[in-house]
Amino acid sequence: MSDVPWKGSAALSGAGYSAVELDAANERLFMLDQRRLPGEVQYLELGTVCAAAAAIRDMVVRGAPAIGISAAYGMVLAARDARALGAEAYLEAMRAAGETLRGTRPTAVNLAWAVRRSLVLAEQHAPERGEARWREQAELGRRLHREDVAACRAIGRIGAARLPDGATVLTHCNAGALATGGYGTALGVVRAAAEAGKRVRVLADETRPYLQGARLTAWELQRDGIEVTVVTDGMAGHCMSRGMVAAVVVGADRIARNGDTANKIGTYGVACLARHHGIPFYVAAPWSTVDLNAAAGSAIPIEERAAAEVTHLGGQRIVPEGVAAYHPAFDVTPAELVTAIFTERGEIRPPCDLRHPPWAERGPAT
Amino acid sequence: MSDVPWKGSAALSGAGYSAVELDAANERLFMLDQRRLPGEVQYLELGTVCAAAAAIRDMVVRGAPAIGISAAYGMVLAARDARALGAEAYLEAMRAAGETLRGTRPTAVNLAWAVRRSLVLAEQHAPERGEARWREQAELGRRLHREDVAACRAIGRIGAARLPDGATVLTHCNAGALATGGYGTALGVVRAAAEAGKRVRVLADETRPYLQGARLTAWELQRDGIEVTVVTDGMAGHCMSRGMVAAVVVGADRIARNGDTANKIGTYGVACLARHHGIPFYVAAPWSTVDLNAAAGSAIPIEERAAAEVTHLGGQRIVPEGVAAYHPAFDVTPAELVTAIFTERGEIRPPCDLRHPPWAERGPAT
Repeated sequence: MSDVPWKGSAALSGAGYSAVELDAANERLFMLDQRRLPGEVQYLELGTVCAAAAAIRDMVVRGAPAIGISAAYGMVLAARDARALGAEAYLEAMRAAGETLRGTRPTAVNLAWAVRRSLVLAEQHAPERGEARWREQAELGRRLHREDVAACRAIGRIGAARLPDGATVLTHCNAGALATGGYGTALGVVRAAAEAGKRVRVLADETRPYLQGARLTAWELQRDGIEVTVVTDGMAGHCMSRGMVAAVVVGADRIARNGDTANKIGTYGVACLARHHGIPFYVAAPWSTVDLNAAAGSAIPIEERAAAEVTHLGGQRIVPEGVAAYHPAFDVTPAELVTAIFTERGEIRPPCDLRHPPWAERGPAT
Repeated sequence: MSDVPWKGSAALSGAGYSAVELDAANERLFMLDQRRLPGEVQYLELGTVCAAAAAIRDMVVRGAPAIGISAAYGMVLAARDARALGAEAYLEAMRAAGETLRGTRPTAVNLAWAVRRSLVLAEQHAPERGEARWREQAELGRRLHREDVAACRAIGRIGAARLPDGATVLTHCNAGALATGGYGTALGVVRAAAEAGKRVRVLADETRPYLQGARLTAWELQRDGIEVTVVTDGMAGHCMSRGMVAAVVVGADRIARNGDTANKIGTYGVACLARHHGIPFYVAAPWSTVDLNAAAGSAIPIEERAAAEVTHLGGQRIVPEGVAAYHPAFDVTPAELVTAIFTERGEIRPPCDLRHPPWAERGPAT
């Protein structure tokens, strides 16, 4: 792609495209408008934290890690606006910006996590009025972005070890480069397997209502030359019954400390089907997705989005006028259906207590 | 509806709309173009068996029983064209017409069944050259149509007895009035429960890729004043886990003699989910759907339709150019996942051998 808008500054995603990047001057966010993919590759230019929040809410960017990075960058724009304020007013402005961002998508815990990191920094540097606040927030945002890509690569290596050569991986939604800082979580596992020389192909659930699988997973795997076939969500069971699926790998929007995993609506059904067919079901997610405050999945808030996202498709009404639709955006897969969780810190096999991960016995948890 | 085109002649469907009707002069088939629902109610007028076959292939009409009746009516148009031929030439013409019809949709067994009934009649009356052939084929078509509606009502009564008052029924695809001669199979069960005074509501899987649930099930239940909520296919598991589903009722395109059931793609996944959650899974279908020649589901041919039905939506491409899609139109639910099969002859609880249904012990099988 020749038309990436951050030409001159390096893309932290490590690819020819990014879900989100901060420009070299720390003044603008570039967000790939994922609602327009695959038909059109268009980056939105966002100059304020409110614009960034609106873009998150409107699904310009989606995927828990990518939302987290977008929020951190949103806080950079907030710090820029508030750089000349007194310490108290600066902190007030940053907290308000954080609230705005946190309100956009309730299920992705990375969002709250990134805002919290930014606010901790804000408290530290509030006394230093001026450019330093802005620059330091930008450094934090870029660090979180780099760490996320590194986490995805580590997750990929850990997960890829579980994929046999010649495996067909079924995935739901998009847990790829577009859902993260770059490289992807579930698709990072696929990429790492391919980089390790394994033959691997992907069956992508189209993932109604937003079609992240058909539009985004297919788009980014095609760019990487990894074989991908799209199926409707209802075909997953049939494909499993025909022996077409070696493993399921999905991402996560939030993981409770017992391993219960919230992810895009439909994931739970895929997990039940995997169990029915004796197929391993893996969750791939950075540690920032783990919510140690949530004892179990029941503590995870499930966002309900507008029914119009179900009743309409491409602007066209598919459900009769006056008929109701229900749109929970996420569901919770109980830990007992999860074969393993891949994080950058290591692999966890439920049942588990993520406050005491297995590797903590070998060294201090971080 | 004031604009049904068969004004003057009675609709055999028993409703203000019909999937298919033969006009009073036995010259034209009226088919409700289900591809345009719910946006537009438009009947196609078909004057030849080839036009009828094309309409079946192109999904103007769908649903195994409705396809069967359409085929029987298509044979009426063939008999009209061939009414002046000699006996041998007439039979030849009718067999060719039957082949054309049979080639349109391989999974629905009712289609082959209706064609066979028509050809048996053709052999009987081949010697009587002239109008009698045409009239007798029309009488047969109408008899099959009336029998189908009566069968749906009987199925409905039998199935409704299994639904508790206040039940929410999850259904997949459209097994309603639009999929049959009228009244419906799975939705016939719902209608009969409502007519018996039970409070009943429906969760309709939208049923990608053709959206029969979102478009057709929602449309006809709304017309009947039965509460219906549309969910995407991936939401079924979540709804079950939340205790929102009392029973699953679906139709069938073909039932093997061991009870294995072919139905719209996605049905098998719903059956696995129902089993996982301990929810009864019912199949409602007329006896014409039973294929005693198929020992098990593996003997049922599964139609693969064009990938474009997955890659495009409303004429718009949703999957990137060059990415493959897979489109098996049906799947097979093994009998062990089926709680009961409702037919107009009675209820069957797998495991079973449909050559020897339970009611045969109480009287001769027909």
